[in-house]
Amino acid sequence: MTPKLLRRAREALDSFAIETPSWGFADTGTRFGKFFQDAAAIDLNDKLADAGEVNRVTGCCPTVAVHVLWDFKAGDDPKRVAKLARQHGVQIGAINPNLFQDQCYKWGSFGHNDPAVREHALQHCYDSIAIGQAVGSEYVSLWFADGTNYPGQGSIRERKAYFTAALQACHEKLSAKQTMLVEYKPFEPAFYHTDIADWGMSYLLCKKAGPRSKVLVDTGHHYSAQNIEQIVAWLLDEDMLGGFHFNDRRYADDDLTLGSIDPYQAFRIFHEIHFFAADRGRMPKIAYMIDQSHNEKPKIEATIQTVLMAQELYVKAALVDHAALRKAQAKNNVVDAELELKKAFFTDVAPAFAAWRKANKLPADPLADHRKSGYERQAATERKRRRQELGIVQGGGYA
Amino acid sequence: MTPKLLRRAREALDSFAIETPSWGFADTGTRFGKFFQDAAAIDLNDKLADAGEVNRVTGCCPTVAVHVLWDFKAGDDPKRVAKLARQHGVQIGAINPNLFQDQCYKWGSFGHNDPAVREHALQHCYDSIAIGQAVGSEYVSLWFADGTNYPGQGSIRERKAYFTAALQACHEKLSAKQTMLVEYKPFEPAFYHTDIADWGMSYLLCKKAGPRSKVLVDTGHHYSAQNIEQIVAWLLDEDMLGGFHFNDRRYADDDLTLGSIDPYQAFRIFHEIHFFAADRGRMPKIAYMIDQSHNEKPKIEATIQTVLMAQELYVKAALVDHAALRKAQAKNNVVDAELELKKAFFTDVAPAFAAWRKANKLPADPLADHRKSGYERQAATERKRRRQELGIVQGGGYA
Amino acid sequence: MTPKLLRRAREALDSFAIETPSWGFADTGTRFGKFFQDAAAIDLNDKLADAGEVNRVTGCCPTVAVHVLWDFKAGDDPKRVAKLARQHGVQIGAINPNLFQDQCYKWGSFGHNDPAVREHALQHCYDSIAIGQAVGSEYVSLWFADGTNYPGQGSIRERKAYFTAALQACHEKLSAKQTMLVEYKPFEPAFYHTDIADWGMSYLLCKKAGPRSKVLVDTGHHYSAQNIEQIVAWLLDEDMLGGFHFNDRRYADDDLTLGSIDPYQAFRIFHEIHFFAADRGRMPKIAYMIDQSHNEKPKIEATIQTVLMAQELYVKAALVDHAALRKAQAKNNVVDAELELKKAFFTDVAPAFAAWRKANKLPADPLADHRKSGYERQAATERKRRRQELGIVQGGGYA
Amino acid sequence: MTPKLLRRAREALDSFAIETPSWGFADTGTRFGKFFQDAAAIDLNDKLADAGEVNRVTGCCPTVAVHVLWDFKAGDDPKRVAKLARQHGVQIGAINPNLFQDQCYKWGSFGHNDPAVREHALQHCYDSIAIGQAVGSEYVSLWFADGTNYPGQGSIRERKAYFTAALQACHEKLSAKQTMLVEYKPFEPAFYHTDIADWGMSYLLCKKAGPRSKVLVDTGHHYSAQNIEQIVAWLLDEDMLGGFHFNDRRYADDDLTLGSIDPYQAFRIFHEIHFFAADRGRMPKIAYMIDQSHNEKPKIEATIQTVLMAQELYVKAALVDHAALRKAQAKNNVVDAELELKKAFFTDVAPAFAAWRKANKLPADPLADHRKSGYERQAATERKRRRQELGIVQGGGYA
Repeated sequence: MTPKLLRRAREALDSFAIETPSWGFADTGTRFGKFFQDAAAIDLNDKLADAGEVNRVTGCCPTVAVHVLWDFKAGDDPKRVAKLARQHGVQIGAINPNLFQDQCYKWGSFGHNDPAVREHALQHCYDSIAIGQAVGSEYVSLWFADGTNYPGQGSIRERKAYFTAALQACHEKLSAKQTMLVEYKPFEPAFYHTDIADWGMSYLLCKKAGPRSKVLVDTGHHYSAQNIEQIVAWLLDEDMLGGFHFNDRRYADDDLTLGSIDPYQAFRIFHEIHFFAADRGRMPKIAYMIDQSHNEKPKIEATIQTVLMAQELYVKAALVDHAALRKAQAKNNVVDAELELKKAFFTDVAPAFAAWRKANKLPADPLADHRKSGYERQAATERKRRRQELGIVQGGGYA
Repeated sequence: MTPKLLRRAREALDSFAIETPSWGFADTGTRFGKFFQDAAAIDLNDKLADAGEVNRVTGCCPTVAVHVLWDFKAGDDPKRVAKLARQHGVQIGAINPNLFQDQCYKWGSFGHNDPAVREHALQHCYDSIAIGQAVGSEYVSLWFADGTNYPGQGSIRERKAYFTAALQACHEKLSAKQTMLVEYKPFEPAFYHTDIADWGMSYLLCKKAGPRSKVLVDTGHHYSAQNIEQIVAWLLDEDMLGGFHFNDRRYADDDLTLGSIDPYQAFRIFHEIHFFAADRGRMPKIAYMIDQSHNEKPKIEATIQTVLMAQELYVKAALVDHAALRKAQAKNNVVDAELELKKAFFTDVAPAFAAWRKANKLPADPLADHRKSGYERQAATERKRRRQELGIVQGGGYA
Repeated sequence: MTPKLLRRAREALDSFAIETPSWGFADTGTRFGKFFQDAAAIDLNDKLADAGEVNRVTGCCPTVAVHVLWDFKAGDDPKRVAKLARQHGVQIGAINPNLFQDQCYKWGSFGHNDPAVREHALQHCYDSIAIGQAVGSEYVSLWFADGTNYPGQGSIRERKAYFTAALQACHEKLSAKQTMLVEYKPFEPAFYHTDIADWGMSYLLCKKAGPRSKVLVDTGHHYSAQNIEQIVAWLLDEDMLGGFHFNDRRYADDDLTLGSIDPYQAFRIFHEIHFFAADRGRMPKIAYMIDQSHNEKPKIEATIQTVLMAQELYVKAALVDHAALRKAQAKNNVVDAELELKKAFFTDVAPAFAAWRKANKLPADPLADHRKSGYERQAATERKRRRQELGIVQGGGYA
Repeated sequence: MTPKLLRRAREALDSFAIETPSWGFADTGTRFGKFFQDAAAIDLNDKLADAGEVNRVTGCCPTVAVHVLWDFKAGDDPKRVAKLARQHGVQIGAINPNLFQDQCYKWGSFGHNDPAVREHALQHCYDSIAIGQAVGSEYVSLWFADGTNYPGQGSIRERKAYFTAALQACHEKLSAKQTMLVEYKPFEPAFYHTDIADWGMSYLLCKKAGPRSKVLVDTGHHYSAQNIEQIVAWLLDEDMLGGFHFNDRRYADDDLTLGSIDPYQAFRIFHEIHFFAADRGRMPKIAYMIDQSHNEKPKIEATIQTVLMAQELYVKAALVDHAALRKAQAKNNVVDAELELKKAFFTDVAPAFAAWRKANKLPADPLADHRKSGYERQAATERKRRRQELGIVQGGGYA
């Protein structure tokens, strides 16, 4: 790497942070079952501790997204939770209401045709927004499992109207510091129609809800063959990109570690962001978050791996020579334009990482350091014992 | 069919018209070659005659979409063309500029980075709009082959800006009677990114262009598994659905006859329209058009077949019992709600067609009547001879 | 319907049976949660009773597929189970081993690299085969969740060898009456690679296992756009089609009721079977089975609905005029050939069903009869009470 | 790179050759049109010269695949063609019959229901096989456009029988040196069903044809989400992998340069080959070929780019540490197993290429050298002039 590239890489590293999800440290699985891990987090303290461990070795995960239903109990003092996070070296990030697990959501949450259920869902969102304000979080992150399984089951337009009204109501509760992220997903758990199926629907609802509402792009929530980076470029151009849920996939919403299946696609997403920033002279504010569910990989290792891959691809994308790229584009020199991207993608950025980690007193090899630390072994022992004490049976079986 | 259903079916038949495409009567094919037909139309007169034949037997195809580049020659008097159409019993429908065939469009039309090419494309659109005004057509229908084949090739945002400006310029030229339809397509002929890839992009550009700009839904221009009827329902709800290009597909943009692969999907699209109309108390204005390319089926037969299928599915969708459907939806009785749709879909509507055709003095069996008429045999003989006289070699071969 | 068609429809109805799955009557869901039903079956007796109810009203579901792990307890006498089934008016059908739920299967069953796990899985299959022999079942139905989530995780070829050996070992245990069905699935729960991903892999493994091994086609286990009926036609031609798991889907393996999304596709599958039978002069032996998982629809109603749709599409496919079809095919008259299929698909077969049901002393409207019977209400009351007595908490929540 | 890796990389470079396609140097396009290039090859001499230029700068493209219909004229002496190729520094590689362009193939070639057409197609294959023998080529490469566009159009099983017989007949004509490659493709130009739709169908037909018949994998001929490297691993394991047609794609069969959209997938394909070779102790014989169609990129540049990417990914895949990979696999250490692949993929292999090129007296930068050589400019001038002399109009327009 030339000194110029090294500098650019280090600037990129300085500016990049990615949020880990509290639920990524607990046991999760597929509808066919879960494979349990002794070291899986039991409670919020475990999750925050695990998030702290990830941040300790990577140095770029200062915040943790929380799931209100799973992480907060009635009567919990949010400020106490914020303090607990700080004790583990992290801060509370995006607040995620849960609008799908309660039996009352069988036919939807914001899209339900029973006003009482919509009200119930709304109240939970208000509570989540209030928690966010109490802990100083900037984001409320909304994902809806709403939809229908069969043609005719629901009125698509009626449900759209319910969503519009509920999102507007949420928006009114936001503080000036808070942004509401609205996620889209084309299928699952609803199979015939999902109420917010694509970025266009998310965009429309955000526009109707109010100016502090932005689109959340989950990289696994697209159709096969869809060009995600184009969506990112359009949302940036419209000032409507709020953030990301990062993961990777082959077929559906597989929640694999970022870049494990298609690293070049993730690189291209980051490239569109850097390219936009170069054109505008400022880096847009984007919430980079992870949303993954690991049934096989050790959860902390998987999270570290995803974080490192995100950092690496973000840095590589920062190395694209925009001047050369624009020049090739201006001449419609497709071969050279493409090669500019490939060159950056295949640049060996190890020297930049080494220097940056040293300067920031971080382990040279985060994954190795985590393994050597004995953290997981200890967590496994302690949590296994605690499960026994609490009478928690890891399992539950077939969904 | 009960008298009530019969009446509803006949009302639906009375209100439904579908536009045939002039280019559907000429030789077309795939990139691997064309299979030629003696009866294929050579010039606009042939195409209008063929469209007239389709309208003669079906009684519901009063207009023909035309392709400016292929159907109009420099110096042609549009009014003469309109008169020619009338002589064949049809009228000129949507005007389709051609923004992809000229060598200057190698890197795009409205999305090209050379202002001279954008100006050239714009001028062609102005001419097309003027032709539309001269012939009394209500629609200008825009499809763009624009896009890029490789990551990095073009600036997605820059091209978006070019499109925004050009569409706004077009919109200014529209008369009060004209509507500009903007089509989207996720891939082909551009393979990496298409400038207007999905309904959301089309919607955004239309909104920026002006109030007489609406989204055109081509049923073949979607990702596998995408729920098209939901898009239709959203666009209706936003008053942004301009029209359809009907065809069917299995894998990509296959341009097969409507309902040949998935008739239930086409039915569901019509259902969303009827359901919307029932809720609003009025049928929305929608341009129903065919866009198909037949390499194997005789072109007029294929068009008749598509028209009959469109009519049949439109009528079946009109038979859905909205009161019963809403009742089942209100109770979240998924089974009954679904069965309401299935019941209508599988209703035998032959009696309604028989009565309607008789009342309108149409052939009882349009396809059989066309075959019996000898039209195709005659066209084949005459056009074969004419090709020889004109020195036209059917062919061209491998693209 | 003409008398000839009526007769053909009734013959089809006489010859068609479809097997219900015991697990389809119990609570199931998605990885995001389950919505519980009071009337959901608790134990095998409930499941057999529910299957009996479906058979009572439809008259075409004489057998029930069972899941060894969930339906049989250690020490159970299979003959007692068979007797229990008979008491509910049904018989035990396909035996389904469970090779994915035990924690030992984290890295696979037949594909695991630990010989002890493979042996464990094998032993469970041997037990299942023995159960099948004891209850007089003809089918052992094998589905494997095996695969890997990440590139590099496993050796694809090594795992193929393990599968080959294990399936051969299973085949040796089969009685002369038993057939081993091998299912394929392109993804889920494994996300990077599934050991038996498509029909070709299933075919190859069956060929290596032995002559009583056949391919099982689950209609939901394909890539988007894949032509399932072609696979069916090829497998029939190779005498390698063992049976079906019927369901429908939009995006992934959605396990919806058959024909709810694309009834014409299911019809075409049946058409290929009838067409094959017509050519060979005999109906091939095929295990028609349902594999669905209902989170929202009442389970018995959903099963009845699927059964009725299967019957209806099977009968419609039996009405295709093969002579006319062959004639149109011979002339490459695509339009007429296609219309032969469409004509049969849209034939109103209600008269045939009415006559057949009357002749077989079946309810004229199976779904209505089931609803009127009070079966579900009674089951709900009784099972709710029993759950309380047994201390069973319906739930478990997020996977 | 360590000396050990350097050595392994150079061994890989020594062993790798990739074949260019003669048709890749001529004007091609999409069904919407072609964009012409002055430097596009006009005749076989041009194509061989262009292939020679690619080989000159890359040093790994010693052979050229030819298309019998386009490259050979009746009466041509194949030996003269072979000599011409040698004069341009290359040899004739795979022989490709053309079974789709003649009007007689409207309803298929080997799958046509008219025995005369099948015979015509067969004769063309015999001629192609004879040409192959005359020029010393090892491969006859068969791709079929056969299929149907509509349900019911043809008898899938009858067509399968025709294919089986014709391929057997071809196989009998092969010399001991020749291998017959049978390609599969899921769609296009047939839209409803393709006679050889997937690897399983190709495999089955090859097995029936005879031992010198192998499967040809075109990387663009798969369903979205399909795991191509698994198919490659299975075919290798069955000794049925004959060769590749390399290209890349996003949505359909887009024929883009290899690795332009998903380089990691191409790497994984090469990895499965090296992994197989490591297990067997020998590199399998595989025909690596390019099949691309460039409408925008300069054709020679695009070919060089694809060749360099193929070499680079092949070399990177050769660097995977198989011992470490097997160890991680044995321990089910998913994270480490995956990282072994990623490490190799992101290794900077420039030093190995520099050394290898120097040792082989090749240009250090093949693309730059080609550009500097003036070859394209000269070809453009000369071919433009020649087109004028020959009265060739570049064009033809809309398909």
